[in-house]
Amino acid sequence: MTTLRQNEDKTPHIIHGIEGLKRELSEKPLICLTGMRPTGKLHLGHYVGALRSWIEMEKIPNMRNYFLIADYQALGDYLDDPEKIRQSVVDIVIDWLSVGLDPKKSCFIVQSYVPEFAELAFYLNMFATYTEVMRNPTLKDEIAKIEKRETNNTLSMWFINYPISQVADILLPRGDIVPVWEDQVPHIELARKIIDRVNKKTGAHFPLPRALISETPRLVGIDGKDKMSKSLGNAIMISDSLAEIQKKVQKMYTDPHKTSIDAPGNTENHVVFMYLDIFHEDKNLIENLKVRYRAWGSDSIWDGEVKKLLVTTLDAFISPIREKRAYYEAHPQLIKAIIDEGAERFRSEAQEVLLELKSKMKILNYGG
Amino acid sequence: MTTLRQNEDKTPHIIHGIEGLKRELSEKPLICLTGMRPTGKLHLGHYVGALRSWIEMEKIPNMRNYFLIADYQALGDYLDDPEKIRQSVVDIVIDWLSVGLDPKKSCFIVQSYVPEFAELAFYLNMFATYTEVMRNPTLKDEIAKIEKRETNNTLSMWFINYPISQVADILLPRGDIVPVWEDQVPHIELARKIIDRVNKKTGAHFPLPRALISETPRLVGIDGKDKMSKSLGNAIMISDSLAEIQKKVQKMYTDPHKTSIDAPGNTENHVVFMYLDIFHEDKNLIENLKVRYRAWGSDSIWDGEVKKLLVTTLDAFISPIREKRAYYEAHPQLIKAIIDEGAERFRSEAQEVLLELKSKMKILNYGG
Repeated sequence: MTTLRQNEDKTPHIIHGIEGLKRELSEKPLICLTGMRPTGKLHLGHYVGALRSWIEMEKIPNMRNYFLIADYQALGDYLDDPEKIRQSVVDIVIDWLSVGLDPKKSCFIVQSYVPEFAELAFYLNMFATYTEVMRNPTLKDEIAKIEKRETNNTLSMWFINYPISQVADILLPRGDIVPVWEDQVPHIELARKIIDRVNKKTGAHFPLPRALISETPRLVGIDGKDKMSKSLGNAIMISDSLAEIQKKVQKMYTDPHKTSIDAPGNTENHVVFMYLDIFHEDKNLIENLKVRYRAWGSDSIWDGEVKKLLVTTLDAFISPIREKRAYYEAHPQLIKAIIDEGAERFRSEAQEVLLELKSKMKILNYGG
Repeated sequence: MTTLRQNEDKTPHIIHGIEGLKRELSEKPLICLTGMRPTGKLHLGHYVGALRSWIEMEKIPNMRNYFLIADYQALGDYLDDPEKIRQSVVDIVIDWLSVGLDPKKSCFIVQSYVPEFAELAFYLNMFATYTEVMRNPTLKDEIAKIEKRETNNTLSMWFINYPISQVADILLPRGDIVPVWEDQVPHIELARKIIDRVNKKTGAHFPLPRALISETPRLVGIDGKDKMSKSLGNAIMISDSLAEIQKKVQKMYTDPHKTSIDAPGNTENHVVFMYLDIFHEDKNLIENLKVRYRAWGSDSIWDGEVKKLLVTTLDAFISPIREKRAYYEAHPQLIKAIIDEGAERFRSEAQEVLLELKSKMKILNYGG
């Protein structure tokens, strides 16, 4: 207990899980900034790793959530395929709505609709040193790859600027909380350092963001090898049809030695059971099935049965999402309005932040 | 003649002097972007090196001139002294008006009043590689100084971004012509490369800017050693009083061997004569004085007399400027209005450029 507390004191900028977040709540509302790059429809990995906790956060009365669709960041990689970005922005809004996120409770923001992000980044550049930005782990990795010629990418100025662009993403909604994976904590630390410098140099009082680290690991793909990713072809989309779910569950990695009901099975790294653990509500039932899978003989079960159960479970989870999706797909004007209204609402708040910064920097109202 | 033409063909992006510029004029208006960093009142070096030709350009009917007050660029260096920037922005507008520039004919733009500069730079970053930006000579010099610890500056992200920020400065008013010193031509070449890439990748037709190189060298300071610069203490301000002009002309570097009227004088590198060559209208009179200065005996003249002539000449040049300055200083609301109106007028043009770029990039109107 003492050890835990000591660790927590050393990293007060890190909060563990939604339960940890709830302990942080006070009368003062907390602002959360999180988001996604629009590079395709969303899959179960997005749901488990992000959307599920966003839905939780939306239920907390004292939290204001800003969900960013980082099209500017995605464009840096897909400059030659803007059609992909266009479609993905719409798909993400539909996916968010379909899982139950509410643009009345939260703010959906398309990054390129808010030029204030660019303006803020422009100013933050004055407070950031080249050296500290180049220490960013993602940047370092990418530069190393280029130097070793492991990639054909050329390093663009967009890429060099993306750590500071992320600081602007956080500061513009005055973000207190940023959900990240453990390996992204350095981004939050850079943001804290730069915002702290802005505050000290100008006398502003912008919040220093804290990282909200997920307590659940990233969802593994149906191959059981890598985390779920559309580009790896191991993903179940939250918009998949029953037939697609069936096909994908059929391909799932299980225990290759469980060749028949008479062979003992291993439930470790068994993708079907991993998914059942997450998506099936009756935990006792699943534990009981695992015992039977590990056993052999007449009371045992084999892959066919657990796969069938998973198909039913996933379809029960996905079909209301799919239904809502069909509705929104049939009402494109609704999506367009949500995109436009979100940006408009956020821009007026964003302009206040810039006004505050520029006023503290004493660069407003020359001659006045 | 053939050689000259060949040279010209190799560097079609370089125009020599106002006379060269006049040969480029056609029915299509040419847009010129030029500007200054607001770091103090202006001196005769600014007049000779820039303002004089700006006044000429303002007289050319087929040219539209955009004069930028690059406060964002200056702030990168003077983050701890915003008061200096505030005062300098006002001083520069007053100096421009006092020498006769006309905000009705040209557009005066304070950079930080136009967030579209930041947004455009944000997009240009996607089209620029890190390597080509780092090849910028000013950046290379500064990095070398830091590596040799010749300076206490830390390299800020602002500095790394300033070559692209300059490309945005040029592209936002759709600049065709950018007056620069010879050593700044690489900036124009970078701008051409990046704008050309934007055009090729997106199908846009933004103009590729050309460098307008001054045919007069930089004005030397009163010490005769360095180019005129306020920070070197060798400058005559275009707002100096008669007493200040007298004091500074008195200190001017002349020929140390011309100790009396009986000693022969040297008019080479003689600062008083250099200034008379520029500011006195009667070239024959000055040539005649030079002959007499070089001679000795009763018909000779010495420093006292030529200095007196220069004081009269400079005061005749400066006093109408000083008078106008006094008027504008007494009417600060006029200056404020010029700053505000210039920015407002330019912003609507700037938004069109961004709309055009974003439409060509296909990132407008998602879902619509």
